Amino acid sequence: MTRTIVASATREIVIGFDQPFCVIGERINPTGRKKLAAEMIEGNFDTVIKDALEQVAAGATMLDVNAGVTSVNPNETEPGLLVKTLEIVQGMVDVPLSIDSSVTAAIEAALKVAKGRPLINSVTGEEEKLEAILPLCKKYDVPVVAISNDETGISMDPDVRFAVAKKIVERAADYGIKSHDIVVDPLVMPIGALGSAGLQVFALLRRLREELKVNTTCGLSNISFGLPHRHGINAGFIPMVIGAGMTSAIMNPCRPQEMEAVRAANVLNGTDQNCGNWIMTYRDYKPAEGGATAAAVPAPSAGGGRRGGRAARAGAGARAE
Amino acid sequence: MTRTIVASATREIVIGFDQPFCVIGERINPTGRKKLAAEMIEGNFDTVIKDALEQVAAGATMLDVNAGVTSVNPNETEPGLLVKTLEIVQGMVDVPLSIDSSVTAAIEAALKVAKGRPLINSVTGEEEKLEAILPLCKKYDVPVVAISNDETGISMDPDVRFAVAKKIVERAADYGIKSHDIVVDPLVMPIGALGSAGLQVFALLRRLREELKVNTTCGLSNISFGLPHRHGINAGFIPMVIGAGMTSAIMNPCRPQEMEAVRAANVLNGTDQNCGNWIMTYRDYKPAEGGATAAAVPAPSAGGGRRGGRAARAGAGARAE
Repeated sequence: MTRTIVASATREIVIGFDQPFCVIGERINPTGRKKLAAEMIEGNFDTVIKDALEQVAAGATMLDVNAGVTSVNPNETEPGLLVKTLEIVQGMVDVPLSIDSSVTAAIEAALKVAKGRPLINSVTGEEEKLEAILPLCKKYDVPVVAISNDETGISMDPDVRFAVAKKIVERAADYGIKSHDIVVDPLVMPIGALGSAGLQVFALLRRLREELKVNTTCGLSNISFGLPHRHGINAGFIPMVIGAGMTSAIMNPCRPQEMEAVRAANVLNGTDQNCGNWIMTYRDYKPAEGGATAAAVPAPSAGGGRRGGRAARAGAGARAE
Repeated sequence: MTRTIVASATREIVIGFDQPFCVIGERINPTGRKKLAAEMIEGNFDTVIKDALEQVAAGATMLDVNAGVTSVNPNETEPGLLVKTLEIVQGMVDVPLSIDSSVTAAIEAALKVAKGRPLINSVTGEEEKLEAILPLCKKYDVPVVAISNDETGISMDPDVRFAVAKKIVERAADYGIKSHDIVVDPLVMPIGALGSAGLQVFALLRRLREELKVNTTCGLSNISFGLPHRHGINAGFIPMVIGAGMTSAIMNPCRPQEMEAVRAANVLNGTDQNCGNWIMTYRDYKPAEGGATAAAVPAPSAGGGRRGGRAARAGAGARAE
């Protein structure tokens, strides 16, 4: 059974086919958040701290940490800023972290100070990336997200994306890195632009699980880009990717509709033992008028939660006919 | 490609792997609805009419019609009452109907007056049922729901349930009924009582689609029996069964959270062309406070809707990293 171990100083999480879905909180990322970028440049980490605490409270299993505040000379600014951000975050919360940067020096600087066993986000199939990142995975004994594109860009052909993922797994093996430490991102296209984007990714996820036997992840909200009511699409996508074998996603855990979909899919996928986490989260749930809402609830845990041991209350269900 | 054709007097619907999910409205059913049963016995069809109109307005693709008001002498009362109910419903709405009864004489009486091509609900693997129902399917050239249980009851072993489904398909073939006119119900157990109920049904659905190549259905809400916030479990289950190959379900279309899941899964499954139905339904969607709700919206269509031809507005989605 494929098991990717990630850890903070005090907490170990397993990403795996038989585990609750691993929600990697995406919020600590100044890309596209000008205000946050400006704050971080000024040395103000109030929003970073707030985002860290809120995401964990909302049920994030892990947190992604990105300090890409500028595209101008990131090699100079990013290592120091990523280290500082990472240290602040790991001082505030006890979930494992994902070190997210396109700057190799920033990744290595962060690896030096990270406690536990962080995840590197990411390597691609590009030769330069493989040669830069895989030695770091080996040296620091950490897992890595492998994105299925290479020098030729992102292929629209899912077979090519599978081949890129396979190449990364094989190259990692050359470095002595086991496939259970490669978490493949098959790349999710916006369904509004490419109607087959869903079917593509479901098929890819099954192949990645059955043929390469690797854990998988994605930038989840890409799927709904450009559509109205994106949270509804995201919330439908989550159970479908989980059903197809995806084991983690980089997403916003502060969206109750999406997190409800994660919790329901864990129940249905058999990874919420005795429905313990579901019952604990929703036992006092009162639907809003019309019975229609996926309302905000105090969220104990969506990911590695093993706290709920209460037996399910269900009996036999008769089919009305 | 497997295509099950159902029709009203004026409207034909295809159930199939490449079609929008077929939502069979379950509301017109006095089983467990004492007030409705009492009304129908008195010849008051106000609730039946209201339920018919509301379900179609909410996006039902078809309506199930059941007149099982009593378990005492149903052979005497049910044929006449089912005929009356069916005639009222087909006079009010133009969607295809499902004739739902455990009384063979009631099914045949209804078949005699039904317009178009109704679905029979249901046959099982029981010898007596097979011999009673399959000749009616052949005589009236109509499709039938095949429930995967037999004289020995409902097996907890999914392989046995698959074998029962296979037996029904083979017996139907002996009568000259094609497998595309058999819609198999693999039987959904409550996940709160059986933690593997989800994984069982997903595996069964894939086998039914790949090996028997049949369309499938289920009594959807069984899955959440006994759990709190059942609509959240149902709404997570829908995308998972659609991803596993299910093509219809008997469910309540008047629940916005479940219907939103159907619409999202149609988009993601590639059966909502250009996301037309999604965009038409949610283009003016305003999330409630907290951005958390799957709120009630005027629902144009969830099932066979082909009206939306508007091109999706999505562009390329960049992954933040």
